[in-house]
Amino acid sequence: MGATRVTETLVLSLLLLLSGSSATQRRKTRAAPRMPCKQMVFYFHDILYNGENAKNATSAIVGAPAWGNRTILAGQNHFGNVVVFDDPITLDNNLLSIPVGRAQGFYLYDRKDYFTAWLGFSFFFNSTLHRGSITFAGADPLNKTRDISVIGGTGDFFMARGIATLMTDAVEGDVYFRLQVYIKLFECW
Amino acid sequence: MGATRVTETLVLSLLLLLSGSSATQRRKTRAAPRMPCKQMVFYFHDILYNGENAKNATSAIVGAPAWGNRTILAGQNHFGNVVVFDDPITLDNNLLSIPVGRAQGFYLYDRKDYFTAWLGFSFFFNSTLHRGSITFAGADPLNKTRDISVIGGTGDFFMARGIATLMTDAVEGDVYFRLQVYIKLFECW
Amino acid sequence: MGATRVTETLVLSLLLLLSGSSATQRRKTRAAPRMPCKQMVFYFHDILYNGENAKNATSAIVGAPAWGNRTILAGQNHFGNVVVFDDPITLDNNLLSIPVGRAQGFYLYDRKDYFTAWLGFSFFFNSTLHRGSITFAGADPLNKTRDISVIGGTGDFFMARGIATLMTDAVEGDVYFRLQVYIKLFECW
Repeated sequence: MGATRVTETLVLSLLLLLSGSSATQRRKTRAAPRMPCKQMVFYFHDILYNGENAKNATSAIVGAPAWGNRTILAGQNHFGNVVVFDDPITLDNNLLSIPVGRAQGFYLYDRKDYFTAWLGFSFFFNSTLHRGSITFAGADPLNKTRDISVIGGTGDFFMARGIATLMTDAVEGDVYFRLQVYIKLFECW
Repeated sequence: MGATRVTETLVLSLLLLLSGSSATQRRKTRAAPRMPCKQMVFYFHDILYNGENAKNATSAIVGAPAWGNRTILAGQNHFGNVVVFDDPITLDNNLLSIPVGRAQGFYLYDRKDYFTAWLGFSFFFNSTLHRGSITFAGADPLNKTRDISVIGGTGDFFMARGIATLMTDAVEGDVYFRLQVYIKLFECW
Repeated sequence: MGATRVTETLVLSLLLLLSGSSATQRRKTRAAPRMPCKQMVFYFHDILYNGENAKNATSAIVGAPAWGNRTILAGQNHFGNVVVFDDPITLDNNLLSIPVGRAQGFYLYDRKDYFTAWLGFSFFFNSTLHRGSITFAGADPLNKTRDISVIGGTGDFFMARGIATLMTDAVEGDVYFRLQVYIKLFECW
């Protein structure tokens, strides 16, 4: 009898535990602490084509508003400029370090009264370090640090989801900038 | 002995329950009712630059097919026009209401024989109401109501996923439209 | 006493199992075999506007770098060209088969030294076969086969996530290509 009661209590608390977690499951509302399952820091380097740097440029203006052109970023905080890029990714903040991958995609400037951007791009890796891709999208308010979403991944980053914190690490006029990307994945398969 | 049997039965059903839910887990095939964990309704207002409204415009044509330009939407149902926007978000359908955030990103018209669009944009909030972003992507058949995907979020909307039902609430020529966006999140953290 | 011990052992192993799976849950790190919950194969057909095929074209160059135009793909591996498309989806590799849906969105070429692309598009279905959309995004290295991410879905593909393996099935100059898309969903609702 004593054994049964102890058992019942244990089993009941198990059941409660179970039903709790299954309810959480169904609606996926989580109060659990937000611990990333994977964290990584990278830098990428963007050299914008300006009519004179065809050899070194890693990006080019491909869209512009009616008042702009494709060699110089438009007035009004570059509103309407669309830039396609294929930028080297490095492990430190040195442009000359050996790239570990490529940041590929586009950004666009979307605000007239100050700088804001919207980004759609992937980190593409094909080395012994990493193989696969991580895809990002989101609004970039161009604050000191800002978060965008990790919306998918392939290969080593199969089905990844999470957040990337961007920090502009260097800017040189309209030609060069370097971003630090602190990736925090919260879904890892 | 009786105690053991009762226990075994309970433990076995628990195990079955467990294995069931873990199989569901692994493949994430859910038959559960689709109840959003968060629902919100917003409006956003798009005023397209047409060469004469530089001050009020919130969006601009930045891409056009060979037969188009960047001041007037192209023929053939605007096929090939790419528009970058930074539109005010309001809680009701009044353009003059105080904005609670900005809708930022782009849309493009992608069909020659009638209107369809593809959207990539974010809702960006930075007020006491909401802080963070929700990112959307998807085909917009421009029906009366249509669904696009919520593919990610940050801040208050960390890791959000779901659906947004769009409804065109008003159109004034090629210059102004207002969308109602009914957001239903099915993954909330 | 014997009964209690057996029970304790069983309950303990259950607890361990539970805590294991709940930890897995919280961080969503899965070692489970990657079995898709849904698999599908489609083809889509892209006919690029080249100034002479206005009637048949399903896509058009809408962005180009300073050194390009919108009728002919630019030099340097088309770096900077942005193409908007509305392509028929078929079940086999025949352009003339009855379309089951439309592939809508854009691709851009993002590398100077060889061909690579970045894609943002949706499969849009509105027939008895399928109703709803699947949205894709990611870097396309244009290898023989390559994976991009399924980032969302609506209707029959509500909340879908997964991977799509692309294979270029045919190319005819700069005007026509056909892609095989092998979709593997790992999250189905």
